[in-house]
Amino acid sequence: MQLVTEQMERYLSGGAWIRKIFEQGLELKKKYGEEAVCDFSLGNPDLPPPPVIGECLADLSCRMDKPFALGYMPNPGYPEVRAALAEHLRKEQDGAPITAGDVILTCGAAGGINVFFRTVLTPGDVVLCPSPYFVEYDFYAANHGATLTTVPTKPDTFELDIAAMEAAITPRTRVVMINSPNNPTGQIYSKETLIELSAMLTRQNAGRDRPIYLLADEPYRFLAYDGATVPSVLPLYPYSLVIGSFSKNLSLPGERVGFVVVSPDMPGREKLVAGMVFANRIMGFVNAPAVGQALLLRALGQEVDRTIYERRRKAMAGVLTRAGYSFFMPRGAFYFFPKSPIPDEVAFVERLAAERVLAVPGRGFGLPGHFRLAFCVDEAVINRSEAGFAKAMAG
Amino acid sequence: MQLVTEQMERYLSGGAWIRKIFEQGLELKKKYGEEAVCDFSLGNPDLPPPPVIGECLADLSCRMDKPFALGYMPNPGYPEVRAALAEHLRKEQDGAPITAGDVILTCGAAGGINVFFRTVLTPGDVVLCPSPYFVEYDFYAANHGATLTTVPTKPDTFELDIAAMEAAITPRTRVVMINSPNNPTGQIYSKETLIELSAMLTRQNAGRDRPIYLLADEPYRFLAYDGATVPSVLPLYPYSLVIGSFSKNLSLPGERVGFVVVSPDMPGREKLVAGMVFANRIMGFVNAPAVGQALLLRALGQEVDRTIYERRRKAMAGVLTRAGYSFFMPRGAFYFFPKSPIPDEVAFVERLAAERVLAVPGRGFGLPGHFRLAFCVDEAVINRSEAGFAKAMAG
Repeated sequence: MQLVTEQMERYLSGGAWIRKIFEQGLELKKKYGEEAVCDFSLGNPDLPPPPVIGECLADLSCRMDKPFALGYMPNPGYPEVRAALAEHLRKEQDGAPITAGDVILTCGAAGGINVFFRTVLTPGDVVLCPSPYFVEYDFYAANHGATLTTVPTKPDTFELDIAAMEAAITPRTRVVMINSPNNPTGQIYSKETLIELSAMLTRQNAGRDRPIYLLADEPYRFLAYDGATVPSVLPLYPYSLVIGSFSKNLSLPGERVGFVVVSPDMPGREKLVAGMVFANRIMGFVNAPAVGQALLLRALGQEVDRTIYERRRKAMAGVLTRAGYSFFMPRGAFYFFPKSPIPDEVAFVERLAAERVLAVPGRGFGLPGHFRLAFCVDEAVINRSEAGFAKAMAG
Repeated sequence: MQLVTEQMERYLSGGAWIRKIFEQGLELKKKYGEEAVCDFSLGNPDLPPPPVIGECLADLSCRMDKPFALGYMPNPGYPEVRAALAEHLRKEQDGAPITAGDVILTCGAAGGINVFFRTVLTPGDVVLCPSPYFVEYDFYAANHGATLTTVPTKPDTFELDIAAMEAAITPRTRVVMINSPNNPTGQIYSKETLIELSAMLTRQNAGRDRPIYLLADEPYRFLAYDGATVPSVLPLYPYSLVIGSFSKNLSLPGERVGFVVVSPDMPGREKLVAGMVFANRIMGFVNAPAVGQALLLRALGQEVDRTIYERRRKAMAGVLTRAGYSFFMPRGAFYFFPKSPIPDEVAFVERLAAERVLAVPGRGFGLPGHFRLAFCVDEAVINRSEAGFAKAMAG
């Protein structure tokens, strides 16, 4: 009997080599011990949440004897959380005059993207995305009968190739999706680049019944290094939205709190917001988790100690440089995406694994010939990995 | 510019009269004060969570200084929560030999249903459901390109009409979905009925490549009155699943914790579970909220004081009887679904609203000629409503 759809069959049998790397890692840890393996494969924030999170839970615990203490709420979230988040985002998003009605609380960024897609995508539509990219986007589009098309970024710098993006736009292109600071490259798109992208989209919108949306997925916004800033798309393009999350800056990924905010310049945006509120309900999210929203309200503006990530980034850059790797110095997020010294990066990642260093092949992000290292691990692990990187490079 | 899909446009413009009732209620409360309105329109559990919830939050608050305190976890949930829930469900589900691998934690029951549908429904498939029914099911099917077909239950008793259900099955029928104790009727299907349903489905499965699933949505399982029990479908039919939630028995609807459990008798069920774990990830749920899972682990087997619901049910039955209404005495859940004294129940619900009593018309559940009363309100409100019910009956 066929228990799952054919599409799901394909999904389950695909990505076998990623799983192989993962299982290889488990085996290595079992064989040599956790301490002997340098695992850079997972983007799982390892810093504890800031102290305010524990304080807030303690306060909440005293309010559980009230009716509706964790009751249903309006689908877009607690009104006071929406209002506080809107105020916070006005500063963060370059002064865009965001109000509570422009913001929806969602089950993480992933929930937010799916809610937006459910509202605007029709089967056969296309989402356009620069590559390398976070491959979950493929599934998010497929959930709604749409497909994801990728356009390579410029070599080495991973800057947007806007001419190539424009050439890839078709009448079915409904969303252009960017991720800055980028996973896996660490690139941050400049304001000039975003202005150029917005101009291109405005040009392409001429004569259309349906606008091309610009969706900026920004879970790593707070992690920009060396004084870099992350420009907002909201004031630049009226049909833009930003997706955010508190998984990384508050180390809360398990509690699933994120948001979608719509550009205050979008004509008729009330309908888009109403659609997303409806989608949040009917997809089964209903509302972002109540406790997570309470934590967010209290912790807005606070974050984990980012100097720890800054030190790790420097340490990792030192290790890679001394071992002779060629890489783009990440301007944000917590990943390096070095070039593989040999063309077949899957073979190279296996060579690294033999040295007990775990990485993810670039084809897992749509760009073979590179590999990804997540540096959300202790600095000691980074330093310990140097010999392994050097040996793998030597072949 | 078209901001949302045509389908979403229809959704947003539909159900206008339900919204009208809701807005009418708001106006009444504004005009006469909250206390003057008897609002039976919302199924929002009003009892505070049991004390263990506050205790657990206090304990959790002391553990927030650890790395990964609220970190990512495996997509189906914390392994210890799955194991404890499996053990709990073995008792609850008539001894079905459920193990941790058969259970997935989800973002409430609504999330669980959508995750299951994403895994098994192909565009054009049909979900069959007895009516009256919880109309969100329509959207859950539509999310995955499928449609919901309803089959009326037997008049007055709201028992399943299994012959009619069998007649409605087509080659595209992929899921039969039941909800017991039922919203809106309060009916609980007997073991004999479920055995008959299972036999019918087994008969219909002959020669099929894809089984017809039986999905039992059981958010009200804990609320059965007068010693009634809720028989489990899991030991009766191998292609069965149960969806549950802790929104009602622990009054936690805002925190979004539910589950899906697969019949241990299903051949090859590992693939179905793997598919649902994958769907949980790609739909953007990723995992059920971390805090909610921790609360569940601690509170399993506890519940709100259900004698309060028992008293309210008796009070409401008394009010309706004395006012001359004809109704099925609910065997479970917290709803009455009386007959409208006039054929047009929307007109009657408006008559009730004029007496400051708020109800939902039966067509909101696919069965005109009735109206729904949610008795998750204070007993005083129920008693206070008697005059209004009597006046509306008198016309």
